[in-house]
Amino acid sequence: MKIGILTSGGDCPGLNAVIRGAVIKGDRLFEDEFIGYRDGWRGVIEGDWMTLPRRRVRGIGRIGGTILGTSRANPFHDGADGAEIVRRHMDEQEVDAIIAIGGDGTLFTANRLSEAGIPVVGVPKTVDNDLDATDYTFGFHTAVEIATESLDRLRMTGDSHHRCMVAEVMGRSVGWIALHSGMAAGAHVICLPEFPLSIEEICGYVKAAHDRGRAPLVVVAEGFVPSDAPEGFMDYDLDEFGRPRFGGVAAALAPLIEERLGIESRATVLGHIQRGGEPTGYDRVLATRLGTAAVDLVHGGGFGRMVALRGTDIVDVPLTEAIDSLKTVPASRWHEAEVLFG
Amino acid sequence: MKIGILTSGGDCPGLNAVIRGAVIKGDRLFEDEFIGYRDGWRGVIEGDWMTLPRRRVRGIGRIGGTILGTSRANPFHDGADGAEIVRRHMDEQEVDAIIAIGGDGTLFTANRLSEAGIPVVGVPKTVDNDLDATDYTFGFHTAVEIATESLDRLRMTGDSHHRCMVAEVMGRSVGWIALHSGMAAGAHVICLPEFPLSIEEICGYVKAAHDRGRAPLVVVAEGFVPSDAPEGFMDYDLDEFGRPRFGGVAAALAPLIEERLGIESRATVLGHIQRGGEPTGYDRVLATRLGTAAVDLVHGGGFGRMVALRGTDIVDVPLTEAIDSLKTVPASRWHEAEVLFG
Amino acid sequence: MKIGILTSGGDCPGLNAVIRGAVIKGDRLFEDEFIGYRDGWRGVIEGDWMTLPRRRVRGIGRIGGTILGTSRANPFHDGADGAEIVRRHMDEQEVDAIIAIGGDGTLFTANRLSEAGIPVVGVPKTVDNDLDATDYTFGFHTAVEIATESLDRLRMTGDSHHRCMVAEVMGRSVGWIALHSGMAAGAHVICLPEFPLSIEEICGYVKAAHDRGRAPLVVVAEGFVPSDAPEGFMDYDLDEFGRPRFGGVAAALAPLIEERLGIESRATVLGHIQRGGEPTGYDRVLATRLGTAAVDLVHGGGFGRMVALRGTDIVDVPLTEAIDSLKTVPASRWHEAEVLFG
Amino acid sequence: MKIGILTSGGDCPGLNAVIRGAVIKGDRLFEDEFIGYRDGWRGVIEGDWMTLPRRRVRGIGRIGGTILGTSRANPFHDGADGAEIVRRHMDEQEVDAIIAIGGDGTLFTANRLSEAGIPVVGVPKTVDNDLDATDYTFGFHTAVEIATESLDRLRMTGDSHHRCMVAEVMGRSVGWIALHSGMAAGAHVICLPEFPLSIEEICGYVKAAHDRGRAPLVVVAEGFVPSDAPEGFMDYDLDEFGRPRFGGVAAALAPLIEERLGIESRATVLGHIQRGGEPTGYDRVLATRLGTAAVDLVHGGGFGRMVALRGTDIVDVPLTEAIDSLKTVPASRWHEAEVLFG
Repeated sequence: MKIGILTSGGDCPGLNAVIRGAVIKGDRLFEDEFIGYRDGWRGVIEGDWMTLPRRRVRGIGRIGGTILGTSRANPFHDGADGAEIVRRHMDEQEVDAIIAIGGDGTLFTANRLSEAGIPVVGVPKTVDNDLDATDYTFGFHTAVEIATESLDRLRMTGDSHHRCMVAEVMGRSVGWIALHSGMAAGAHVICLPEFPLSIEEICGYVKAAHDRGRAPLVVVAEGFVPSDAPEGFMDYDLDEFGRPRFGGVAAALAPLIEERLGIESRATVLGHIQRGGEPTGYDRVLATRLGTAAVDLVHGGGFGRMVALRGTDIVDVPLTEAIDSLKTVPASRWHEAEVLFG
Repeated sequence: MKIGILTSGGDCPGLNAVIRGAVIKGDRLFEDEFIGYRDGWRGVIEGDWMTLPRRRVRGIGRIGGTILGTSRANPFHDGADGAEIVRRHMDEQEVDAIIAIGGDGTLFTANRLSEAGIPVVGVPKTVDNDLDATDYTFGFHTAVEIATESLDRLRMTGDSHHRCMVAEVMGRSVGWIALHSGMAAGAHVICLPEFPLSIEEICGYVKAAHDRGRAPLVVVAEGFVPSDAPEGFMDYDLDEFGRPRFGGVAAALAPLIEERLGIESRATVLGHIQRGGEPTGYDRVLATRLGTAAVDLVHGGGFGRMVALRGTDIVDVPLTEAIDSLKTVPASRWHEAEVLFG
Repeated sequence: MKIGILTSGGDCPGLNAVIRGAVIKGDRLFEDEFIGYRDGWRGVIEGDWMTLPRRRVRGIGRIGGTILGTSRANPFHDGADGAEIVRRHMDEQEVDAIIAIGGDGTLFTANRLSEAGIPVVGVPKTVDNDLDATDYTFGFHTAVEIATESLDRLRMTGDSHHRCMVAEVMGRSVGWIALHSGMAAGAHVICLPEFPLSIEEICGYVKAAHDRGRAPLVVVAEGFVPSDAPEGFMDYDLDEFGRPRFGGVAAALAPLIEERLGIESRATVLGHIQRGGEPTGYDRVLATRLGTAAVDLVHGGGFGRMVALRGTDIVDVPLTEAIDSLKTVPASRWHEAEVLFG
Repeated sequence: MKIGILTSGGDCPGLNAVIRGAVIKGDRLFEDEFIGYRDGWRGVIEGDWMTLPRRRVRGIGRIGGTILGTSRANPFHDGADGAEIVRRHMDEQEVDAIIAIGGDGTLFTANRLSEAGIPVVGVPKTVDNDLDATDYTFGFHTAVEIATESLDRLRMTGDSHHRCMVAEVMGRSVGWIALHSGMAAGAHVICLPEFPLSIEEICGYVKAAHDRGRAPLVVVAEGFVPSDAPEGFMDYDLDEFGRPRFGGVAAALAPLIEERLGIESRATVLGHIQRGGEPTGYDRVLATRLGTAAVDLVHGGGFGRMVALRGTDIVDVPLTEAIDSLKTVPASRWHEAEVLFG
């Protein structure tokens, strides 16, 4: 078969390992031919692609980002007949199936295409770990490791200066990275979008830690807003996604804590370094398994479905499951973490 | 309650995070008092313990090894009445329950004690990931990351010299570390105890990789023996566990490969560095969750049981489940990896 | 002798290795007794100190920050007679000499005390590498490694999105960290306080890199101001040192680049993670050597002097040399780097 | 000018950064054209080379190993007229000058060629830091960081088991890596080829550390032989360089320590991972500076010379200086370290 691959949406450590896994398996087992679209759906729409012979994927499994490039282009943009656009391209290039690697937006598009009869399978990708149909997504653990390492560093300098360190990690809508990195680093309070603490409560935990002689560490997901946020609390310039471009919630919280408690406080925004790393071993293994499984899914005719991790197994599920709802941090995980605060 | 904690068997990144999680949760939620036994069961047998107030566990979550020390001591050693020894100690010190953190040997002991009426719960620990009743154990992912990083380095020097690099990783009886780190590093062949390839087959994969212009990377678990191993192949000095103290299978394989294929080959034994690292974020989170869950298990009266990971949940299972059989790499995982060889 | 040690000013990876080196050498060779002041000069002024027996320093060489704590307190603050304060304390506690570990402010104070007859020696400390009398200071290389690693990560995500990444690193007055980390990461332009490029020039380099198909990487020291900065360019809230608390120059530059060139641009401020790490091997060796040499300097009666690195040797120089002037990046180093821009 | 570049001898982190620095500077400033020889002198002898346009070196600065490959080939091998061979190649391909990057063997060859009138300049390379004419060589600090990190890990597992860990690092003839990594990791004794301790003395330090409650860490350079080594102490299979292929001195020492002191001891050989890493920021900066300086040296007609680091400056020196003698660890550095033993 001739299979097209694309990576779409925000980049994520492990994308290259998916591509490599798919190409090697397809080449070895099925004598598939692969092409890669440049910058996600843009490459399909504009017919911008490269061949992906085995030698193009050599050694890329450990490299972060994506050799194909990515974008937020979408064949249905502006009311276009996306299915027609994609079908025409596939006919012209004699492409038999598409493997779309992306987050909820990409999988939503893939599902629309599938419903219109386009043979497409999905591979879930989200640094934020917010996709419902899979236990974990590659990239998430890499982001957690990078964040944890940074939090460890912040603790060391905080300890020397007896300061409260407020660290903002990724997570617009869900707090998975904050939960895991905060728990790993022994944070004294973790602020998730799902469970809005008040500034009062946050200060309570900070004070408790300070009273025990610790330099308090506050980990806050970028999408967190305190339940008692004063007027104008988040009044910053916003970026294309409506999130504060700089200093967001951490920069807003730190001076408040300092003012209320008299504890010197500093904010740090980890930002883009969280998504830019080499994938960890964990994420490379997961991504490789998903990539090879996606090829099996194509050959098994499982169009409209995506590969996913359940326990220790790679399974496949309908695309509709993935895009149904956001996977938020459940209350049980929150309570598990909360008991360690302060 | 007054709870005793011990770490037993080989050390493992994450032990301190378990201890910390248990102590903080017990202290916070139940006003438990904790003591820690020095060097595993030895501390119970000899009454060698320290108090574990909250401040003793501060900051230890990210530190490798175990602040309690460990050993392979066993209260049933040499036919001793282990249950009686442990019970006497618990009575004297008014200890209500014991949390035993360890591998199959430790959990076997814990189960015997439990059957004799001692209130003990288990926390599974194995760098090798060979315990059947839990999806993963803490320490395993840290070992995989360290091994992967080392394999990445070996590839770079191998590439420069066009050499075949043979790397030996931990895994006496099971090949989990070899499987994951080998897959992560893009090894050209992975040798597991569970699926004994012949030297012939290994050389076939090495040659295929070399013919494609790659510097072949062979990852071999320490317990692997080729199916066609010549007489005396593993004739080395053995250590206390019956495994070759040095150079083991990697040192045996490398010259054979060089001789048969004429490709310069070098062996490396990663050894103890694999178990000595700071735990990764993943392992710290898992270990912390297991530690807090163990305290819940004690308070719920779940003696004779151990905490475990299933999917994304922490559950508890009978100790007997853990010690029933070794968790080996299943054929499905082997085939998934094998298709990428050569 | 009885020797007091203090760490003062901003914290810095390697402080603990200095302390450890001094204590072990003094203990071994001279049977010295050590005390450590809490939070720099504050501990001297307020008589807040701890004993530093050998066992207090075990294992601290690899830990970031300082076990003694630090502050910006100063015995001469507010016109106080600092020498009298310090002398009185030393008499009371029978302290024979003080080892002051710190940056230009600390060394300036040490020099004033020395001129007033107090037996004090200095150990230079600055993450920024801006002290003139030593080739390098410990902490600098650790900060460069952390920054380099972060820049590598930014490049990966930048490449995937074809974005211009603008990264702000430490360096209020000097550009050493920007120069080294930028050169190490292959930045397309590096902005130093010492050599103020115009926004025009920066955009020229960004465009050149972009035209060659690269995702441009701009590394900017926090103290850099473009030579043609428009009115209000740096109009941010300022922190205690007069530097922008958030988003500083990187956050100002990124949108300007995007606007002028139409290349999507993102800013990242590395911030406090740069000074919080475990010291690298390089910094641990340098710090240990300086610590042991400081004890020799005390016993040799070299008061009013500090230890320093010259080439591969540890030497000692008058404190006055260290505080004479800031060590800025020389033109030769700038030209060496500049040729690689664009 | 048309300039040929080669990397020769053992690989070393930073080689690619030298190549990149040279190519970009030559391209930018002088419009030089570059070719790269495959596998060192072999490429010159056999006319096996690739063009090195600017785009071939993009992004390679941070990658370990060498994109050109390396070998121990030598144009003067077996009495061949090396100068004639090289001259003929240069005439045919119109190569104006050669930049030879390598250790003492390579620089010796370069010097012979230079004496025969071939326009060649050198760039010193040695992981072992044993070249006399330069303060440090790139690759050395990377190896020290990797070794230090591994030693940190060994300490953690050693501490948990109260074991003596014996770690063997690179250094056939000189002990620089052992000295720096051992000092960084706080080793209790460091064994250098230059200062042969007796087994008696080593055991003395191990016992002293053990008596203080520490898990002793012994760092030993591969070329170390105890002054009182018993008959057959180093009787192992030797590799091509006459060094023990496995288990070398560490594997010999560990059981001796265990036998004499009754302290459980384990040996680890770090081996090839020390030279395979991504270069640290330090080494990338040094390598880049040497690469750009080598191009200046070519254009300045400095043939028969090599670039070198002196203090913080890049200078150039006669090749003869580099090959005169090995740079061993001086007594002053040994005494500095020794005081911390035990």
